[in-house]
Amino acid sequence: MRFDIITVLPGLLESPFGHSILQRAQKKDLVEIHVHNLRDYANNKHKSVDDYPYGGGSGMVMQIEPFAACIEKLTAERKYDEVIYMTPDGQTLNQEIANGLSTVDNIIILCGHYKGIDQRIRDIFVTKEVSVGDYVLSGGELPAAILVDAIARLIPGVLSDETSALSDSFQDGLLDAPIYTRPAEWRGHKVPDILLSGHEGKIAAWRDEQQLQRTRERRPDLLND
Amino acid sequence: MRFDIITVLPGLLESPFGHSILQRAQKKDLVEIHVHNLRDYANNKHKSVDDYPYGGGSGMVMQIEPFAACIEKLTAERKYDEVIYMTPDGQTLNQEIANGLSTVDNIIILCGHYKGIDQRIRDIFVTKEVSVGDYVLSGGELPAAILVDAIARLIPGVLSDETSALSDSFQDGLLDAPIYTRPAEWRGHKVPDILLSGHEGKIAAWRDEQQLQRTRERRPDLLND
Repeated sequence: MRFDIITVLPGLLESPFGHSILQRAQKKDLVEIHVHNLRDYANNKHKSVDDYPYGGGSGMVMQIEPFAACIEKLTAERKYDEVIYMTPDGQTLNQEIANGLSTVDNIIILCGHYKGIDQRIRDIFVTKEVSVGDYVLSGGELPAAILVDAIARLIPGVLSDETSALSDSFQDGLLDAPIYTRPAEWRGHKVPDILLSGHEGKIAAWRDEQQLQRTRERRPDLLND
Repeated sequence: MRFDIITVLPGLLESPFGHSILQRAQKKDLVEIHVHNLRDYANNKHKSVDDYPYGGGSGMVMQIEPFAACIEKLTAERKYDEVIYMTPDGQTLNQEIANGLSTVDNIIILCGHYKGIDQRIRDIFVTKEVSVGDYVLSGGELPAAILVDAIARLIPGVLSDETSALSDSFQDGLLDAPIYTRPAEWRGHKVPDILLSGHEGKIAAWRDEQQLQRTRERRPDLLND
């Protein structure tokens, strides 16, 4: 699977894509991540890519031409399944959307910055608008990294333990059960006896009950869906 | 405001904190960000910080002792307002939570990895559990960066234009209106006439109407709250 990310801050994305699971996924050739510097597509000598908003107001707006030039260069080279704009007013990312996107081949991700991007880029080029949550950030770069991470870890072979992603929170519509590891007692705080009992069936039943209970307490909305 | 982030992947957070608004906020001494390598607090020669889950199952669990050692070192040095664990089963981050956290002085953020952290760390040390959204990621590092970004940009003086954060999506409970910049026409696609009219009052009314309409279409749930 290939990700092409268009941003004014390519350097910001260096370390998130250069460590841990995303680094290994690229080394195994399961994932390709290409970060494009939007300023390379500016058609003026100052490499500026933004301008004042029409109608007044605070903040700068990213212009249509550099995005158009970069997107059209990429789409001339290969077919893209989605051109995604990361924006707080997009569709809220959830596990189902991540699962769906993990099955496609090529995705372009546009990172906004400043006040946002010219609406015409969204109208003409963007096929999907995604929000990582109901909060405002200084740019679309961290959301783009979140989206790539959420998708890439679902691609077969990326996680070393294939069953691991399937037992995560949300994959069965419930939150995870509490987990414990050594030592069995720390300053008087003990691991629940049941987990040390060796009774596989009872442990599974306890975990199911804990999942339900935690979901009921913390996220009853997940049970109503 | 001071953030102390505890992680097994300190390198992953280098570039997000070294660019753009978070870099400038640190240079202006408005924000201090300290990233701590959890392995420095491991009490074994292999610097391992995780072990198999009690009761069986896939994935590794992060142990209580290294987190306890790092948290206790920090809390001996200064008072912390919150010890936050980034986890998909935490309280879902929104603008209101970010606004609240932007007024405190010192925060510790714990990044989970692998299958998660020993439940006793959550029971004993954590004061707040925060999720950036209903999706699973390979670790808590990107969520920690998201949380720091969402909070830091609200601290007075961090954004160059103070009115900018106030006019963002969510701050007034509505999504933003469409924005446009030069050129006024691109391949036949025109900016709405009203924005070129110069009538401040009419432009403000149009934007209000667009905000309401976009929120009604995309996020009716925000209007019902």
